[in-house]
Amino acid sequence: MSRQEITIGLFGFGVVGKGLWDVLEQTPGLKANIRKICVKNHDKPRPISTDHFTFEKNDLLDDKSINVIVELIDDPEAAFEIVTKAMQNGKGVVSANKKMIADHLEELLEMQKKYEVPFLYEASCCASIPIIRNLEEYYDNDLLVSLEGIVNGSTNYILTRTSEDKISYEQALQLAREKGYVESNPALDVEGFDAKYKLIILLLHAFGIVEQPENIFNLGIQRLGALELRLAAEKGYKIKLIALARKLENDKVIAFVMPQFVNPASRFYTVDDVFNGVQTETSFADKQFFIGRGAGAFPTASAVLSDISALSYNYRYEYKKMSQESLSLSNDFSIEVFVRFQHKDEVPTSDFISITEKYRSADGHYIVGRIGFDKMIKCSWAQNPGVSILLTPAFNAEPYLHKEQDALKSEGVGIRIQDTKSFG
Amino acid sequence: MSRQEITIGLFGFGVVGKGLWDVLEQTPGLKANIRKICVKNHDKPRPISTDHFTFEKNDLLDDKSINVIVELIDDPEAAFEIVTKAMQNGKGVVSANKKMIADHLEELLEMQKKYEVPFLYEASCCASIPIIRNLEEYYDNDLLVSLEGIVNGSTNYILTRTSEDKISYEQALQLAREKGYVESNPALDVEGFDAKYKLIILLLHAFGIVEQPENIFNLGIQRLGALELRLAAEKGYKIKLIALARKLENDKVIAFVMPQFVNPASRFYTVDDVFNGVQTETSFADKQFFIGRGAGAFPTASAVLSDISALSYNYRYEYKKMSQESLSLSNDFSIEVFVRFQHKDEVPTSDFISITEKYRSADGHYIVGRIGFDKMIKCSWAQNPGVSILLTPAFNAEPYLHKEQDALKSEGVGIRIQDTKSFG
Repeated sequence: MSRQEITIGLFGFGVVGKGLWDVLEQTPGLKANIRKICVKNHDKPRPISTDHFTFEKNDLLDDKSINVIVELIDDPEAAFEIVTKAMQNGKGVVSANKKMIADHLEELLEMQKKYEVPFLYEASCCASIPIIRNLEEYYDNDLLVSLEGIVNGSTNYILTRTSEDKISYEQALQLAREKGYVESNPALDVEGFDAKYKLIILLLHAFGIVEQPENIFNLGIQRLGALELRLAAEKGYKIKLIALARKLENDKVIAFVMPQFVNPASRFYTVDDVFNGVQTETSFADKQFFIGRGAGAFPTASAVLSDISALSYNYRYEYKKMSQESLSLSNDFSIEVFVRFQHKDEVPTSDFISITEKYRSADGHYIVGRIGFDKMIKCSWAQNPGVSILLTPAFNAEPYLHKEQDALKSEGVGIRIQDTKSFG
Repeated sequence: MSRQEITIGLFGFGVVGKGLWDVLEQTPGLKANIRKICVKNHDKPRPISTDHFTFEKNDLLDDKSINVIVELIDDPEAAFEIVTKAMQNGKGVVSANKKMIADHLEELLEMQKKYEVPFLYEASCCASIPIIRNLEEYYDNDLLVSLEGIVNGSTNYILTRTSEDKISYEQALQLAREKGYVESNPALDVEGFDAKYKLIILLLHAFGIVEQPENIFNLGIQRLGALELRLAAEKGYKIKLIALARKLENDKVIAFVMPQFVNPASRFYTVDDVFNGVQTETSFADKQFFIGRGAGAFPTASAVLSDISALSYNYRYEYKKMSQESLSLSNDFSIEVFVRFQHKDEVPTSDFISITEKYRSADGHYIVGRIGFDKMIKCSWAQNPGVSILLTPAFNAEPYLHKEQDALKSEGVGIRIQDTKSFG
C-alpha cells in the first residue's frame, strides 16, 4: 500500500505538542516531519530552537507544502477557527480538542464532506485507548448495546486519592492541582463536562448520534461529601465518574455522566489513578473491556501519532453508524440512585418511583431509590450543590413509561418502601 | 464508501458455524447471506432445512456467485485445502482455524499476494477481542514493546476451577470436559499448543515475524501438581497460562507459552473462567489491556461477522510490520522460574544462573532461580512430565549473553544463593 508523506503544521507546544515532537523524533519509520509550530506566547522559554516557531497562524495555514494541520491548543474557539481554515485550504486535520469537537460536531461533519478532507481525533477520547477507531471499524455489525467508561483521568485520580488516602474531596483536588493533573480552573474536569464532551464524540461513533452538549446531563464529583465517602469505604465500594450510553429499545439511547458506587465485581473497580477504562457490550460478543492511560504527554501524543500514521495511509472516518442506524436520545428511563442531602424533607420521597433505603443522621440524610431520569434532572433539589447524587452499583437503567407509572401512582401504589436491604 | 454484497459459502456447521447462521439472521444491516453450507457428516440431525447443505466442497468452491468462503471446520489440513482452492478461485476467505494458519503461515501470505485475495482471521485469536485488527491498524508507529496474554479460554477455565474450588488439575479438567470446554483430546489446549498457534499469528501482526510452531517453546498446564497449587493459594497468587512476545534489544524478540504465578497487582489476576486478556506495551502509550470472551459460539461468530463486514468494505490486512521492521526470534535470554520436581538432585542447581529459594519436603522439592532460557529448554529434566515449571510473578526476561555469564561462572560467582526471600 502506498504511503503518503506527511508534512505537519503544528498548533500548540504545550505538554502534548512537546510530547508529539519527542515521539516523532523517535519514530523514523513514519515519514512525517513538523514544518513549523505556531504558538501564542512570545516570551515563554522553549526547549528547541526558535527557528521552529511562528506566531502567525497563516504561516502554517497558507503553506502549500503542509498537508496536515495538528491542532493541540487549549482554546476551543481559536482551535475551531484554525480547523475550519485548514479544511477550507484542503489540509487534513488531527485534533485532540474534545470541547471544540463536541461543540461543533455537526459543522465538522459537514466540512469534512464539503472540502473532502480527513479529520481524525483519536487523542480526544481516552488518550491511549483506541476506542474511536474500534467503534468505527470493529463494532460494526455486531450491534453495540452499550458503552460505559471512566473517561476522565483527572477525576479518577482525585477519586482514587479519596479512597486510598482516606481524604476529603477538597484535599484530593488540592493534591491533583499540585501534581498538575487539573487546570487552574478545574470545573471542566470535576463537574463532568470533559467526560461529557468525550461521551458526545463516542455517541457519534458508537450509535451515529449527533447531539449538543446542553442536551446531555452531566453531574461531576464536586458535590461528594464525607458521608458518601465513608459509606463507600464501609461497603467496600469505590466511587467512579462514569460516562454511559446504552441502547434501550424502540431505537432509543440513553446517555449521561454521573458518579457511581462501584463494587469489586465490576471491572471499573480496578481502574485507578489516571487510567481510563471503557466497556463495550454487543449483542453477540458480550462485554469487552479496554484499559489504558487516559492522559499524559506521551500517551496522548501516541494517539495523535497514530492518527498521523493513519492519514499517511489515506484513512478517514466513514461514520458508518450514521447511515446504518436511526437512533435518538431519550430521558424516558428510570435508574436507582443514592441521594444525600442536608435538610430534612429537602428531597421529597414522592419524587421517587420506589424507595429501598432512608437514612437520617446529624451528618446528613440519604435516600436510595428508583427515580425517573427526566423527573430527577428537572427537580430543584437536584440543582442544589448541597445534594449529592450517585448511581448505585446496579442502577439498572430501565425504560420508564411515564403514563403507566403515573397511573400506578394515582392508585396509591406509586411510592412503596421496599424491604430494607442495603443498596447494592 | 461503497459496500460490496457478500455471498458466503460456509464450511462447517458446528458450534461456531451455527452461531454465525444465527448472528447473520439478526443482522439485517449487513448485506451478507449464506448461499450454501458444506458439512461432512451425512447423518447428523441439523436445526435448519437440509436444502441449505451439501456434502460436496466443490459445490461451494466452484460456485461463481459465492465471493467469500467462511471456513469453520476442525481438521486443519482439510481446511488448508479448502482455503487454497478458494483463493485460487479468487474468493475472499475468512477462517477461525489457528492451527491451520500457524502451520501454513508463509504459504498463506504468498497466496494472498499471488491471487490478490483478502484472507481475514480475527476469530482465530481471542474470539471477541479485536486484537489482530488493533495490532494491524493501531499499533503501527508507536513501537510495540511487548504483547502478553491469556489467550486460551479452556485452560483458563481449568485454572480458575483449581483456584476457586480448591480441586486438582485432573478434577478441573474433568469439569471442563463435562462442560464441553475442551475437545475429546484436550492436549492441544492443556499442553499450550493452541496458545502457541495464536501467539504465532500475533507475532506476525505485532512484529512482522513469521515463525514455525516447532521453533517456539510451549509448556502447558498439564504438569501442575498439588504442591504448586497449594503454594499459589498460600501466597494469594493465581496460576495463568501466558503467551508472551517481547522485544529485547538488537532487534531480537522473545516468544513462548508458559504457566505463571500471577499476583493480585497484575491485571491478568482478574481474567478468569473462559475470558481472555491481552496486554500490549508500547514505547509511548505504556500498557493497554483488552479483556473479552475468548471462546463460545456467539463471541467467535461475532469476530467472524466482523471480518465478513470488513470484506464488504474491501478491507485486507496490509502486514505493515513486515515491511517496517526486521526482527527475529531469540532464545538468548534469562528468566526467573519456579521448578517443582519429585526426586532429589533431579534438577541440578548448576543449571541456574542464580538461585533464590530451595525447598525440600516429602511432597516434592522446588527451586526458584534465574536460568538461561535456551539452557532450560534443552535440559533433560525440563522434558520430564514429572517436573513442573512456572514463571515467577516478576520473571523479568533479560537478555542473556552466554559468554559474559559463563565467564562470571568460571570465576566462581555464577551460582549464588541470594538472601532467602519468598519469590515474587
